[in-house]
Amino acid sequence: MRIQEILWRSARFYADRVALVCGGEQFTYGQFRERVNRLANGLSGLGARHGDRIAALLPNCHRFAELYLAGAQLGAVLVPLNVRLSPQELMRLMDHSEARGLVSGGAFRQTVQAMAGMLPRLPFRVGWGLQAEGFLDYEDLIRAGSPRWADFDFNEGEVAIQMYTSGTTGTPKGVLLTHGNLLANTLTGIFERRFSCRDVFLNAAPLYHIADVEYFLQILSVGGTNVFIGRFDPLPFLEAVQRERVTGTWIVPTMIHDLLACPDLARYDVSSLRTIFYGGACLSPDLFFRAQKVFPCQFSLGFGLTEASPLISLLRPEDHQGEAGEVGRRLRSCGRAAFNVEVRIVDEEGKRVTPGQVGEIVVRGANVMKGYWKMDQETQWTLRGGWLHTGDLAWMDEEGYLFLVDRKKDVIKSGGENIYSREVEEVIASHPAVREVAVIGIPDDRWSEAVKAVIVLREGVPCSEKEILEHCRLNLAGFKQPKSVVFVPSLPKNITGKVLKTELREMYPRSSGGPHGF
Amino acid sequence: MRIQEILWRSARFYADRVALVCGGEQFTYGQFRERVNRLANGLSGLGARHGDRIAALLPNCHRFAELYLAGAQLGAVLVPLNVRLSPQELMRLMDHSEARGLVSGGAFRQTVQAMAGMLPRLPFRVGWGLQAEGFLDYEDLIRAGSPRWADFDFNEGEVAIQMYTSGTTGTPKGVLLTHGNLLANTLTGIFERRFSCRDVFLNAAPLYHIADVEYFLQILSVGGTNVFIGRFDPLPFLEAVQRERVTGTWIVPTMIHDLLACPDLARYDVSSLRTIFYGGACLSPDLFFRAQKVFPCQFSLGFGLTEASPLISLLRPEDHQGEAGEVGRRLRSCGRAAFNVEVRIVDEEGKRVTPGQVGEIVVRGANVMKGYWKMDQETQWTLRGGWLHTGDLAWMDEEGYLFLVDRKKDVIKSGGENIYSREVEEVIASHPAVREVAVIGIPDDRWSEAVKAVIVLREGVPCSEKEILEHCRLNLAGFKQPKSVVFVPSLPKNITGKVLKTELREMYPRSSGGPHGF
Repeated sequence: MRIQEILWRSARFYADRVALVCGGEQFTYGQFRERVNRLANGLSGLGARHGDRIAALLPNCHRFAELYLAGAQLGAVLVPLNVRLSPQELMRLMDHSEARGLVSGGAFRQTVQAMAGMLPRLPFRVGWGLQAEGFLDYEDLIRAGSPRWADFDFNEGEVAIQMYTSGTTGTPKGVLLTHGNLLANTLTGIFERRFSCRDVFLNAAPLYHIADVEYFLQILSVGGTNVFIGRFDPLPFLEAVQRERVTGTWIVPTMIHDLLACPDLARYDVSSLRTIFYGGACLSPDLFFRAQKVFPCQFSLGFGLTEASPLISLLRPEDHQGEAGEVGRRLRSCGRAAFNVEVRIVDEEGKRVTPGQVGEIVVRGANVMKGYWKMDQETQWTLRGGWLHTGDLAWMDEEGYLFLVDRKKDVIKSGGENIYSREVEEVIASHPAVREVAVIGIPDDRWSEAVKAVIVLREGVPCSEKEILEHCRLNLAGFKQPKSVVFVPSLPKNITGKVLKTELREMYPRSSGGPHGF
Repeated sequence: MRIQEILWRSARFYADRVALVCGGEQFTYGQFRERVNRLANGLSGLGARHGDRIAALLPNCHRFAELYLAGAQLGAVLVPLNVRLSPQELMRLMDHSEARGLVSGGAFRQTVQAMAGMLPRLPFRVGWGLQAEGFLDYEDLIRAGSPRWADFDFNEGEVAIQMYTSGTTGTPKGVLLTHGNLLANTLTGIFERRFSCRDVFLNAAPLYHIADVEYFLQILSVGGTNVFIGRFDPLPFLEAVQRERVTGTWIVPTMIHDLLACPDLARYDVSSLRTIFYGGACLSPDLFFRAQKVFPCQFSLGFGLTEASPLISLLRPEDHQGEAGEVGRRLRSCGRAAFNVEVRIVDEEGKRVTPGQVGEIVVRGANVMKGYWKMDQETQWTLRGGWLHTGDLAWMDEEGYLFLVDRKKDVIKSGGENIYSREVEEVIASHPAVREVAVIGIPDDRWSEAVKAVIVLREGVPCSEKEILEHCRLNLAGFKQPKSVVFVPSLPKNITGKVLKTELREMYPRSSGGPHGF
């Protein structure tokens, strides 16, 4: 099946149910399908063809949802762009993807205007509120397009989405996800989460990220309601939950933290929430137990990556229940394998390691990407032996729970030893003055790499470098202790809250010898 | 994922829940997994290897369930045999499949003894209560086998089951279903039927047929309980429903008919039933409305075939609800496409026809078989263009409901016209004296094929050939009217209740001229 057929089917079964809620507007499944048909025919009229890349620079809204399905209907490939990138970075991705079209909206007027000189190379451009030359009005296109379902003939092995990885590791890669990949993840997600047409899902995370796309498609499949708000902010989020009687949402721990810190929280009725799905990072036991008091619903962690469409494992609602110590232990895990997804931990030769041993997470299943756009060698290497090599180091316990240890690329090789930056980070994070920390290896003549800790302190809690180093000496083996420490006001992060160690390494290219004299 | 991993997973999540109920015995998921591990290791000790065919001649029982998963664990291919075949037919299938082993049980002692002379060619034989030479005792094998999970390395593209089609069309074909095929259908089935760990499913249909295997695997996946009874009979069926608080079962219309005719029906508590799944044939409105009074639960039709693992379409519970005339119309349909299964009606050139036009049902999806065992030409022809050609003629209405017209092979070509035997059958079946009817074409010098009606009359309702022909004259165009009629006490049927027209054609090889003198 192809993803546009999800809508086609749901419009048959649930024509009069509300499919989308966006700002003050609502669209039934019947209306949603008609708008998608019109948009597909409109884009086709502009020359959009099977295999064409169409870039999307869009806020979370019903139009983004429409574009996903209209592009799919044509057999075109949607290239959802990270809205936080600079105009130059965006143009670079559009060039790399060989985009033939761009769809954007008023929120990005400035960005689009900054790209004005570069845009004429795109054969077609559609948008609203942009005040930029050469853009057809989105609603004009919808009005003019035929409402007839245009059924193009291609199979589920073809690419639906080319999604650029958010770039914790340098060069962005265009992950090619086929219709079949997305459907496989959709079925796995619905199996695990038991969504039904009674679900009302709040899309608070950006739709250009796979973590939100997957929920959007699952809710669409079961005939539930997708609610869109703009960028996450506690108040609009809480208002939407209360107003739409939201049953589920996907957020990252930082958002949970912000919600708990919101002084007006208690004023809102959040009793409709059945499950808070979260990801991007584990929840600290403290944050989880506090959140559970305010949101008396289930919690469920999804772990995955774009290349796996994205689900790999889940820390299920049951894993969040039970005796506090046990729950706290499990909260450090990213759960157990998702149904119909094979997950293994392997050594450098691809052999499975025994429970407890650290190795790389590899994944096999119909959800695994076709490959990277125009990176054949990278594709072959990443998919070698029929397994997706995630680059994540982890161990699995006897019960199948996965515990992340580090990104393979973040392992620090110092004085002949392997040091997991995450382990050092956890020790430093346990110091009461530390709010956040990232540990990296920096090139060093003597040690090959030297451990460096980049720390954000809690406001109003003074702390010296010496104190941190003393704390490490008490809690870490000698070779794991940082050789240098730096305090910063904040850490560079991507949209899902992952620290961008690549940027940190660029900021600290060499061991300076510096104040600590190592 | 491979099917043995379904059990592996459910045993982790639901170790202490009841997985199987069989006769007086119960097995938790933990016990089930241990027995499967022991059986797999035991069979491995006997020399069963990856790719080996293992034939199963078994009644519905926990051991059949164990064998499916133990065989899968080894990477062996299970060949489930139709227990109603003769010893000669069984040996022919075992030879054709190149079976290396046979597992059987006491119920088939006589059959096995009749095959005694032919069995020594099989390298290993396992069973119970057979009193036949060369068979190792099943429970001895389980006792001696290691309880350790033996994880063999192969992927989901490999064959798990080689299932011989029940043979409405002549030569039995060995349908090769991979682990991936079975998993795809499992996810589709759970999506459509919303099974959960609270479900208790009564396996009343034989486990050597795909229609029961699919439910068994779905219930296994969600951690529900599979209940086995021997051959279907109303009393043991009703007793099991009451005793085990059964929530779902799969039966054929004939069984529903038998249940309604059971004088003790009202004595049993069937209130636990949530859904009666049925298939093999449509329910007549009369039978449905009567059944609904006795079983106040949902009804759901599944349409499919072994080659599609098997689900193609469903007439869903909602389709059985509403105004009686509308429901009656829909009951003649085999429903709408299953989620993630593409269904089309095409003409002889493979082009889609418009709604209302008759063509062949073709199917595409991850559920479609790998092919037929050792029948490359047949495989290529059946799977041409990437679509499974089902051989079923049907039309689809504007809403996507499929209406079967005939088997492509059952279309009668008479006097230059195409006659759908099903249409003639429906007219004849509407005569009050007719209980069942099958219409076939028999070779005829003048008409190329002549329409012949084979009829079973209702008990105690007399009727003449002349009356039937007169009824046809009033209701059918001249060229569609039978040229001859014969009354028989019963029609030959396969296990799912489908009439075996091949056998009928063998019984009536030529147009006799006969009493009607056409």
